[in-house]
This record gives sequence, structure tokens and C-alpha cells, in this order.
Amino acid sequence: MRAIFIAVGSELLELGRIDTNSIYVSEQLAEHGILTSIKMVVGDDITNLSWAIKNACKRSQLVVITGGLGPTEDDITRESAAEALKLNLIFKEEIVERIKTMFKRRGISMPEINTRQAFVIEGAEILENSVGTAPGQYYEKDNCRLLLLPGPPREMQPMFDRILREKISKLSNFFIYRRNFKFGGLTESETDSLVAGIYRKYKNPVTTILASPGIIEVHLLGRSKKSIDEAKELTDELSEKIKEKLKDFLITEENISIEEFVVKQLINKKLTICTAESCTGGGLGNTLTNVPGSSEVFLGGFIPYSNKLKSSILKIEEETIKRYGAVSKEVAKKMAENARIISGADLGISVTGIAGPGGGTSKKPVGLVFMHLNTEKKDISQYKIFPGGREIVKKRTVNYCLNMICNYLKDEKNQR
Amino acid sequence: MRAIFIAVGSELLELGRIDTNSIYVSEQLAEHGILTSIKMVVGDDITNLSWAIKNACKRSQLVVITGGLGPTEDDITRESAAEALKLNLIFKEEIVERIKTMFKRRGISMPEINTRQAFVIEGAEILENSVGTAPGQYYEKDNCRLLLLPGPPREMQPMFDRILREKISKLSNFFIYRRNFKFGGLTESETDSLVAGIYRKYKNPVTTILASPGIIEVHLLGRSKKSIDEAKELTDELSEKIKEKLKDFLITEENISIEEFVVKQLINKKLTICTAESCTGGGLGNTLTNVPGSSEVFLGGFIPYSNKLKSSILKIEEETIKRYGAVSKEVAKKMAENARIISGADLGISVTGIAGPGGGTSKKPVGLVFMHLNTEKKDISQYKIFPGGREIVKKRTVNYCLNMICNYLKDEKNQR
Repeated sequence: MRAIFIAVGSELLELGRIDTNSIYVSEQLAEHGILTSIKMVVGDDITNLSWAIKNACKRSQLVVITGGLGPTEDDITRESAAEALKLNLIFKEEIVERIKTMFKRRGISMPEINTRQAFVIEGAEILENSVGTAPGQYYEKDNCRLLLLPGPPREMQPMFDRILREKISKLSNFFIYRRNFKFGGLTESETDSLVAGIYRKYKNPVTTILASPGIIEVHLLGRSKKSIDEAKELTDELSEKIKEKLKDFLITEENISIEEFVVKQLINKKLTICTAESCTGGGLGNTLTNVPGSSEVFLGGFIPYSNKLKSSILKIEEETIKRYGAVSKEVAKKMAENARIISGADLGISVTGIAGPGGGTSKKPVGLVFMHLNTEKKDISQYKIFPGGREIVKKRTVNYCLNMICNYLKDEKNQR
Repeated sequence: MRAIFIAVGSELLELGRIDTNSIYVSEQLAEHGILTSIKMVVGDDITNLSWAIKNACKRSQLVVITGGLGPTEDDITRESAAEALKLNLIFKEEIVERIKTMFKRRGISMPEINTRQAFVIEGAEILENSVGTAPGQYYEKDNCRLLLLPGPPREMQPMFDRILREKISKLSNFFIYRRNFKFGGLTESETDSLVAGIYRKYKNPVTTILASPGIIEVHLLGRSKKSIDEAKELTDELSEKIKEKLKDFLITEENISIEEFVVKQLINKKLTICTAESCTGGGLGNTLTNVPGSSEVFLGGFIPYSNKLKSSILKIEEETIKRYGAVSKEVAKKMAENARIISGADLGISVTGIAGPGGGTSKKPVGLVFMHLNTEKKDISQYKIFPGGREIVKKRTVNYCLNMICNYLKDEKNQR
């Protein structure tokens, strides 16, 4: 079974807006073996939308539409769907009653305009909205299933989850098996040149490579009409080939972020950490503290952005900065070491670099970053010249630091 | 003139991927008065794509297609477009020559497969690709213009910019005028309830409200067939009404981020700043240092995540923490004050709070954040109970702090 997704709303066509509902819906559908073949965003225009719905019904067995179910004149999904299917809209008193109750609970009476939300496609099932006023609709006939859902994600998602569980998942004739890998220290094109020759040979599982600065995720999704075991077998076969090829770069197979992985490992090994960030300005601390429970291992950090603060709060001798420059291996080392000592943490990690666009020289170009991991027994120095603009350089540096911590923790010798 | 945008590629339909080309293209088109009526993402399937192109040509005057111009069998945009237009593909020796030269420069010979990229729709203009191997194509007939562009943004954008400037912009019969506002201290629904009654009455200008945690952007885009003056007049009329209604929350009319605005104001006023962040863990420092030139005003900061570091590096008396708790107005005040004094900055700003999901109590719930801005002469205390998950609470807090700095700098009395 194939699905077509339609997001409705002129605002989604404007100025940097993106439709996020399609990401949620197509991911959930894929989990049940239903792939999305076309996604559309259509403005508030009955002609365009009814054309889109009519054609989507012809070209797939499931059409999921989000948005345009509000009470205003701009909300035209109901009318457009009825026109596409050549069916009438029926007024349902029960919906009005429910909406009136919702308003009453908030101490106000229902505006007349909300009666528009009580029109339902002839023969469609009403899907209750526990969060907002717009009910959803589910219409099934012959080989087409049409699902009308409200636009706000917090209203859409529970409604979609329910109908997926109760009806749509039963229509899928596929078993699904997934695996995920996270790799560090590789670019997207390096990854692709290493493994494209392997995964391109397989149409099943489907391989997706997602790159963020410094981290590469590889997702595999295998399908089988026969059994979950076959889906697993197909997925495992390719997974193991990819894993073998990229084993030196593997961070984790767990479906968690690299910062979650780092925090989890630190907690397991009962190790604490302190940061000292110049170039990234707090980005590493910010990323680590995005993880719930990070306070167990992250004692805190320093952001000695100016040279003066490098000396005053991190006790780096002015002489060292003068001799080697603030962006240097030596200063990075001192930053990590002193952060560790001052905080009493097990690990100190530091960053000093030139994020750009200004500040570069021929000897020390924009993108040059020194990173240092220090423990009582060990020093690990790294430097990189990262490509990209200021924010990308910062983000790559943060991920690279996390990768350094991962590699340190991988080494069984580096235990408490 | 209306445009339809089609992104081609099965990978864009998978697992959390989004098409970003449509954002760039539709934004640039809007700048020239051409609005996008439908956006589509279509997988690598000739039947679906040729259907999409054929119908897009019928329903609009401009069809922009990105992706599917590579050399592999999955790249089916050329064939699909030819089929949709019922035209032949013509082999162009000149394209092969150019691709061969590109490969030769990299010291390798062109793989045979790349000859696929030399097929051009009968009658189409070839658009040179200065970055990659895939040339673009521009086809114009009757009332339909078809633009085939490569998928990678760094190849697509310069090609699109050129054809927009040389051909497409001349087809537009609209003058465009834009205004932007940024507001702080309001939620999206509060904004909407204040101004929806005003802007909903106008179809022109088009009003877009973009919300990120703690910041609301309002964009207005006015169009006129007559003159730029009329476009400006229309835009100004509504802009002034919105501005008047939300004047207490206005941050800036400049089309820059709030952190850029803060850094710029600090530079103008020759004021320096130091941060002390517990709950946000470096998020504020990270955000400020995303701005080029921030090193001129941002001296650095502290991330005293543990109570021990609050005492050791920020010199907060253990007694104060014990008496009021680490998440308290008193500790926030001391953090800001000591950060300022230790760093020698003009402004100290601090955060202490409970980002969640754990750590909340009935007296101090998850989302409770104390923020404090301290100067030699002034103390500004704020607390908020922010909704949302851990990362959202952190992000809201960072934006709220930036908003506090803006408000402080707005006040003419607070000058150096």
C-alpha cells in the first residue's frame, strides 16, 4: 500500500515555513510498512485542493490530509474533499454540541462560526478531537481511504495514532524491521563513497543517510510480506556489511543522540566532566545539558571568550597565551587541564578556535579549532580545520568533542 | 503569475528528511511578486513525476523542479519532463565535453554513466552548472515555463538566481514591498488573539506569523500591479496597525535575529557582558557567540551547573544556596552580580532554573526559571514558569534573557 500526504494551508507556502506533520505521518506509516509516494503542500484554494485530493485518491490507497479544518472561511478541506469525492457534506448536530461544551468549560459561548466544523463528508466516520474543536474524518470506499486531520500537531498526532492503530495498520501487508547507526569523524560524502557501492545494490532494506555537522546517521528499514524474521534477515545482512565497512567510526547502534550516548556512558562509568569553551561559547555545555540527567555527570564549565578571562577564571598564564596564541594546542591543553582541576571533575575538555568569518590568518585560518581532552592520566589533543560558516564550525566542533569523549570512553583502559 | 514547486527524490520522502530547496525558491520568487500555490515532493518514479509535471504545467505558469538530474538510473527528471511535455530528449555532445573536462581536472576520466546527463528536452535552453556535473534546463512554450535544476543547494541556488534575474523576474507583473517585526514576551496564540482581527481583513499584504520559543516574527508582504509606492502604502497601512497594537513587545523592525540585535546594540553602546548559566548550561553564551563580532562585547561566561561550582567559581556563599535554594531569586542575583564583577563586564546576566523533566517540586515546578540582569546601578529580576520539554524550556529562557537585555538597552537612562 502506498500513501499520499497533503498539508493544507497558505501559511505553509510562505516565507521559510515548513510542514512538519508530513514527517511525523510518513515516519509512523513507514513503521507499519506503508511508504509515502508523494507529499504536497496546497494553499487555501478549493480548486487546487479538490484537484489534489481527487488525483491523490486515484494514485494511492491512502490519502492523509492535515490542516484546513478550522472554523474560518480559509478552512476549506471539508468542502474540497466533498467536491473531490462528489459527495455531500452533512451537518452533524452532535459535533456542535461537543464544541459548545468545550467552549462552555472555558466560560465562553461558542462563536457561530464554529458550526462550520460540524460538516462531515457523507458516509465518513467522525474522529474525536480530545484537544481542540476540529474533529477529524475518515472515509473509506473501494480502494481509497481518505483521512482528514487537524493541522496543529498536538491535535493531529493522537488522532492519527489512534486511526493508524485501529484501522490503517491492519491494511498493511508488510512486516518491518529497522536498524540505526551513528558514526563520527566522517563527512557525508566520505560515508557515501565508502558505502554507496554496498547499499545501492539493495532496494530492500531502504537505506537513508542523514548528516548533521560531524555526525552521520545511517538508517535501514527492511520489509517483508512473509514474516518479521525475513524483514530482520534482510536488514541484518546489509547492516552488517555497512557496520564492518565503517567500524572505525561507529559511535552507537542505539537510537539516541550522541550527547545522550555520552551522558549515559559517563553515568555508567561514574565519571564527571567539566568544559572550557572559547570558540563554541557554551555550545558543548548547552548540548550536554540538553540531556535529562546530565547534572549527574556535568559539573559545569567555563566560557573564557576573552583572553583576559582565560587568565583570570581559568588561570592560564598570560605568558602561555602570548607565546603560542589563544588558538593553540598549548592553550587548549591548559584550558582542559585547569577546568578539570578547578572543578574537581574526572575529565576536562576544551575548545579554542576561529569560528569566523573574521579573525583568520594564513597560519591560522578560519575554521581552525584545537580541542583537548584531559584526565589525570591522559592527554588527547586534536585539531581540525572545519569547513562551513560560523555556526556550522561551532556545531561541528561540539560534535567532534562529543566524538572525542566517546572514543576515550570506548577504550577499556580508560576506566575509573 | 503563480508557481508550482516540485522536489524530486525518494530520499526526500524518507525518515525525517525535508526538502529545503522549496524554501529558498519560494522565498526568492516571492521577492519578485510570484507566489507559490503548490509544493510537491515526488519519489524517483517516472509515472508519478511525469503526472506531476504535466498537471503542474496546466495549473500554473511556472514549474520549478529540483533534483533527479544526476547520472544514475534513479535520476528520472529528464525522462519524466519529456514524457509530460510529449517531447523528445536530444543528446548534446557539448554537455559531455564539458563534463569530461570537469573530470579531467580532477585527474579522472568521465564514467560512461555520466553521458545520461547530456540529454536535453527538445527546444530547452541548457543552464550551465559551474559547481557540479548536472546542467539545468529551461523550457518555455505557450503559457508554461519549466525549470529543471540540480538537487544540491550549492548547485541549484546560483543557477536559479541567474535564471530568475535574467528571465523569470521579467515575467512578474507585481511590485513587492516587505516589512518585518520581531516581538518578545508573547506567545503565538497571544499574538494571534491581539492582531488576527486586524490582519485577517487584508488579503494584501500577506501576513505571516512565525513563532519560535519566546520570539514572534511578523512578516508582511504587500503587492501592487501599479507601483512600488502602492505596494509600500498597502504594507505600511497594516504594518502600523500591528505595530501600534503590539508596541510594548516590539524588539526590532530590522530583519536580523534577536541575538544579532543584542550584539549590535551592545557594540553601539560600547557595553560588555558576561553570562552565568545554570539551567541553560551555556545556551545563552552559545547563542550570543553565534553572532559574528560578538567577541567585541561578550567577555565570556560561567556554567556553574553543580552547586559546588556555584560556590567555587562564582563565589556564591554556600549559606545563600542553602537558605534560598539554588533555584531562587537570591542566587540568580548573586550569580549575575559576581559574573559581572569577576569578568569586569558592564552587564552580568544569569539563569537558574529547573529544565526538567525531573527535579520539580510543588513549590518549584519544572519550567521555573529565575533570570537576573545586573549592572553597577541596576538589578532586574524576572522569573517565569515556562511550558514545554527540557530543550524548549532552555530555548525559551535564552530568548527571554535576550529580551531582558533588549528592554534594558531600550531604556535611554541605561547608557554608559
